[in-house]
Amino acid sequence: MTVLDPTQPLDAIAVAARAYSNWGRWGPDDVHGTVNFIDDGVRARAAALVRTGRAYSLSLPFSGDGPQTSRGTRMNPLHAMRAVETGTSGTRAGRPLPHGFGYADDMVVMSLQCATQWDGLGHIFDRGQAWNGRTASTVVTVRGDQLTGIQNMAGALVSRGVLLDVARALGADGELADGFAITAEHLDAAAADQGVTVERGDILLVRTGQLARVRRDGWGSYAGGDAPGLSFTTAGWLHRAEIAAVATDTWGVEVRPNEFDDAFQPLHQVVIPHIGLYIGEMWDLEALAADCAADGRYEFWLTAAPIPVTGAVGSPVNPIAVKLPRSVTCLTSVTCSWSVAAPPVAPRPSCSPGTARPST
Amino acid sequence: MTVLDPTQPLDAIAVAARAYSNWGRWGPDDVHGTVNFIDDGVRARAAALVRTGRAYSLSLPFSGDGPQTSRGTRMNPLHAMRAVETGTSGTRAGRPLPHGFGYADDMVVMSLQCATQWDGLGHIFDRGQAWNGRTASTVVTVRGDQLTGIQNMAGALVSRGVLLDVARALGADGELADGFAITAEHLDAAAADQGVTVERGDILLVRTGQLARVRRDGWGSYAGGDAPGLSFTTAGWLHRAEIAAVATDTWGVEVRPNEFDDAFQPLHQVVIPHIGLYIGEMWDLEALAADCAADGRYEFWLTAAPIPVTGAVGSPVNPIAVKLPRSVTCLTSVTCSWSVAAPPVAPRPSCSPGTARPST
Amino acid sequence: MTVLDPTQPLDAIAVAARAYSNWGRWGPDDVHGTVNFIDDGVRARAAALVRTGRAYSLSLPFSGDGPQTSRGTRMNPLHAMRAVETGTSGTRAGRPLPHGFGYADDMVVMSLQCATQWDGLGHIFDRGQAWNGRTASTVVTVRGDQLTGIQNMAGALVSRGVLLDVARALGADGELADGFAITAEHLDAAAADQGVTVERGDILLVRTGQLARVRRDGWGSYAGGDAPGLSFTTAGWLHRAEIAAVATDTWGVEVRPNEFDDAFQPLHQVVIPHIGLYIGEMWDLEALAADCAADGRYEFWLTAAPIPVTGAVGSPVNPIAVKLPRSVTCLTSVTCSWSVAAPPVAPRPSCSPGTARPST
Amino acid sequence: MTVLDPTQPLDAIAVAARAYSNWGRWGPDDVHGTVNFIDDGVRARAAALVRTGRAYSLSLPFSGDGPQTSRGTRMNPLHAMRAVETGTSGTRAGRPLPHGFGYADDMVVMSLQCATQWDGLGHIFDRGQAWNGRTASTVVTVRGDQLTGIQNMAGALVSRGVLLDVARALGADGELADGFAITAEHLDAAAADQGVTVERGDILLVRTGQLARVRRDGWGSYAGGDAPGLSFTTAGWLHRAEIAAVATDTWGVEVRPNEFDDAFQPLHQVVIPHIGLYIGEMWDLEALAADCAADGRYEFWLTAAPIPVTGAVGSPVNPIAVKLPRSVTCLTSVTCSWSVAAPPVAPRPSCSPGTARPST
Repeated sequence: MTVLDPTQPLDAIAVAARAYSNWGRWGPDDVHGTVNFIDDGVRARAAALVRTGRAYSLSLPFSGDGPQTSRGTRMNPLHAMRAVETGTSGTRAGRPLPHGFGYADDMVVMSLQCATQWDGLGHIFDRGQAWNGRTASTVVTVRGDQLTGIQNMAGALVSRGVLLDVARALGADGELADGFAITAEHLDAAAADQGVTVERGDILLVRTGQLARVRRDGWGSYAGGDAPGLSFTTAGWLHRAEIAAVATDTWGVEVRPNEFDDAFQPLHQVVIPHIGLYIGEMWDLEALAADCAADGRYEFWLTAAPIPVTGAVGSPVNPIAVKLPRSVTCLTSVTCSWSVAAPPVAPRPSCSPGTARPST
Repeated sequence: MTVLDPTQPLDAIAVAARAYSNWGRWGPDDVHGTVNFIDDGVRARAAALVRTGRAYSLSLPFSGDGPQTSRGTRMNPLHAMRAVETGTSGTRAGRPLPHGFGYADDMVVMSLQCATQWDGLGHIFDRGQAWNGRTASTVVTVRGDQLTGIQNMAGALVSRGVLLDVARALGADGELADGFAITAEHLDAAAADQGVTVERGDILLVRTGQLARVRRDGWGSYAGGDAPGLSFTTAGWLHRAEIAAVATDTWGVEVRPNEFDDAFQPLHQVVIPHIGLYIGEMWDLEALAADCAADGRYEFWLTAAPIPVTGAVGSPVNPIAVKLPRSVTCLTSVTCSWSVAAPPVAPRPSCSPGTARPST
Repeated sequence: MTVLDPTQPLDAIAVAARAYSNWGRWGPDDVHGTVNFIDDGVRARAAALVRTGRAYSLSLPFSGDGPQTSRGTRMNPLHAMRAVETGTSGTRAGRPLPHGFGYADDMVVMSLQCATQWDGLGHIFDRGQAWNGRTASTVVTVRGDQLTGIQNMAGALVSRGVLLDVARALGADGELADGFAITAEHLDAAAADQGVTVERGDILLVRTGQLARVRRDGWGSYAGGDAPGLSFTTAGWLHRAEIAAVATDTWGVEVRPNEFDDAFQPLHQVVIPHIGLYIGEMWDLEALAADCAADGRYEFWLTAAPIPVTGAVGSPVNPIAVKLPRSVTCLTSVTCSWSVAAPPVAPRPSCSPGTARPST
Repeated sequence: MTVLDPTQPLDAIAVAARAYSNWGRWGPDDVHGTVNFIDDGVRARAAALVRTGRAYSLSLPFSGDGPQTSRGTRMNPLHAMRAVETGTSGTRAGRPLPHGFGYADDMVVMSLQCATQWDGLGHIFDRGQAWNGRTASTVVTVRGDQLTGIQNMAGALVSRGVLLDVARALGADGELADGFAITAEHLDAAAADQGVTVERGDILLVRTGQLARVRRDGWGSYAGGDAPGLSFTTAGWLHRAEIAAVATDTWGVEVRPNEFDDAFQPLHQVVIPHIGLYIGEMWDLEALAADCAADGRYEFWLTAAPIPVTGAVGSPVNPIAVKLPRSVTCLTSVTCSWSVAAPPVAPRPSCSPGTARPST
């Protein structure tokens, strides 16, 4: 187990940044980071999981009653109607629209980080540097992310999802305490316990149970306070796992308070700018986790498509997980030529024919 | 072919409303409309399409340069940064955040109808009545849709997608002229030409080619002007097809100008409040259609998850289509017990074991 | 002193509504309510107060750190930059703007009731009725106030201001306790104490001192909680005084909790729809009140021009009070022909020549 | 008359910047610029103008039908209702609010530059420098103007207003053509023609008549296109006049196209960062100008209080001009001790007793 010196966060960040850097791994022009791991083989395996089954939305409601307190930079969605014309009359008299046509239009104002979300690669910097070693101030300006905006990911965050329900694996009540640091050992133990292997290109979901608790007790400081979460020491594990993304049911993925005397979200500081890892926050894993606990299967087809707001450093997302029932068997022979049709995506090599894969 | 009397739109609307009503079909409390058609068999067939392949985002960029003119009730997304702290220095001196931590946060203001979107069931009314025969003014108030808000669809719009590329089927240049009315005959001919059958529970995509034209020539009145689109006379076809939803590459799905002397979006007035049909607008079908034309396969796995803004009458969506390459074969034996984990969903009956289905 | 039966708020409201109604007083088409009291004589007297002196802004800062909690319908202003181009270089190379031109643009999202504000006549209704006996639902729709929108007041809220510093008059520390009900007797006593007479057409400012307290102790529930304020029983006094408007340093003008067992802002329910009185809320009277206490003069020239947002039921306002020093004397001979050039204002009769008025 | 070399805008800007700089004039910490000119004598003279008379709002409506096209960084106000509860019933049954209490709340989203506005000192930079020689990037960041935000002007923009109706002075129809450059000679001629002298501390209004034209013909490119306006060569005149501010009825005060082959708003580049001059744009001078033409008096008391949005580089404003009728005479003897009670204002010296001033 990695030992941290809580008095030396900057040293630890710098060491981790060097050790786990993916800068240049996909060339100097890369804007996709670890999503590059979602290649043909990954998708072939993921696709095998979808035969039929249960679909889960992993999104919180986007509501004015959400977790944000609006004291800092973040606000809950403000939904307002722009028009409500019920069109009661079948005549045109005094009405702009004829024949009883009625309609309603609406709008929203929201922080892109308000609820279930993706952090884009332009969301976090380390000592002035953004993903792939770029100068942060040239990547993100007052006009938004000029290079790695979330629109680059419009079609890319589709892969196998794997749930590590650490909260269930570690305790009877299925809820980790605020401040509980999930280590690599915990992740490995949960995977072993659940009979699932985290593989290259996966979108990893880690359940802490905090959302269940705040649902019961009230939002409190859910949007920015103490929470269970990933230990800083998982940076190496996350790097080696070659996952495309990691998401949790907390506001900030990593443990709060963190493991240093004086630091702010130090794991972010390593994994976003250095590993190029996509981070999902405030995902609702409750129903999916219950289903996984019931059928013992912790893998699924996951579509987590951001709203491609041009230049955004993050995005609301409604992730959809589709579960495979146990009894499905599938024999496939694939010629894979997978590609993502979203904006500026580097070409991917076509691969050789895949092989049959029994899905249980 | 149905003959319309262009001088009598209200009669035609009333006749169609009676003929094609689904009111009560799924009980008096229904809030899902035609999405009820996506049952287990539908999903089993759809899932068989995903083995590996190509993923397409069907979303326009959500950008200030979008099609809206902001003169009426609709505006393009306004994206603004709330914070950009690049954290250049490794020291804490004079900085709120320590050790070179830098970050950026952002926000958006947008009409929910601004770009690629779903119309919710509360978006259109007919003579004061909303979906399932409810009084419009009690369903949608200034505080939003009190009953059929888009959050009900959080996990539901996942099914087989079928593209009918009417524009390609009908002409060499693949672009229908503004004002061209697509009839049931055109839809059937395109389906026959493409070798695909529209089935119960499908999400149907109809390509007119207008988006290709405005991409080349400028937005013009794309967000609210003349367009090719579905004839009013397709209402019966849409009803009989028992599809879950229909989406096009135009702002309003139906032909503009429409086929009456004086009417406004008359097809909407029938299909949303009476059929309970979900309508998708301004979907970018270009890359997907090119792929379909290339491989001759017009069906795919489609995940079109709205951002579940509570009470909204519509939602931005980034639909993701996953195509199956020709060479894939798949033999499945499924026990299906499909359900949607989104908010208030009526229970669905579990079904008997599915049968093997070769996917080509 | 009026005695209230706290168990019968509706009766009391109905009685007061009848007794103090101004419906029809300025004709059936009136949209100005008590601002009609600001006639030529009023302005002549007010104008005499401005010779030179001290100008006070009575506005709170419009800031994200304001009093709103964002849990209900109201939010603090959200200010965001839309562009910051510093134009460092004197060359055009790589820059959209030449020769070192730099600029910044910004935007705001805010509840119109967020900070220092006017309540418009469309802000409050009584049993379905709005100002002048109109049906509320036809006056204010989802598209805003169709008739009495704040834009009608664009040029009208300019008159003599009078401060009644009840908090100073009643106690040593100059701060009334939350729940303290200011009665007509208190108002009269303060006026007598301060040597000022409230006259027809005045804009009356009543200081409770609550703002001083929350400035010291934190916003707490300043934006919607308990507060000192006007007693329900002042409705008659406010009606008889023929003032154009009344404003306080609290969020809701009237005392909270109010004097009934079960009622919500009952004084509003009488004074806005029945008297047609303009109400100002969250005005910062501290510096002005200190000045008045120092020089013993409680009257001033007050310009309180709303931002004329079309159809708004209220508006942010930055009221400017200009004080007259004691030593000014002024002899005037006026022919008055005062009018307000703002949108739809009914004609006012021209008056006969004014008379000289010594200003002390 | 100054001769410009249209091929050398940067030289001209640099020369003017040096020649007309007010940097340091009010000390290194100044945040008020030319508003410092509004001293006691100025206010004494201005105040003498207010006896009674006519009040004019110089504000455009803040409406969705405003001049902005929303294609760039600026949008028209978006006004939305947040609540409309008409409270029809006198009972509490099923209602959150008792006894027929009804209300409406609303919100606005708008560019601070959308309609009638003040440019703050942080709005324009010259080669990386802001007002008083500060580094622009430290004054204005993504979080707004850190130093010269418009809130500094909360109580300051109150003074004598003077209208130079150049359009009326120069021609029969009272509308200057787009591209017409108003020179110092034109300004002087209009002043002479109108019998008014521009003095230190005045807020100068210059009418071009363009607003009358677009009102008649449609907004067109009013919010950012060609316009009559001040010549670049007026920079010296504006500097020497020691006015507090200048406002016009156009979007950008200066002539468009400007007088250089390649430049963007070059006069802005001199007057805001170097002279520290406040600029008002899109002011509606029509009714006021008609009144001035009718009575021959071009001076008035002007209150132009910005909404003090913290950190804003500009602000919506509803300027109120109060006119003095011809027949008023006034003899005053003032002891002036004028001060502005707005946020951070440098102390002003008290002045000696003013002198009587007949107001005609």
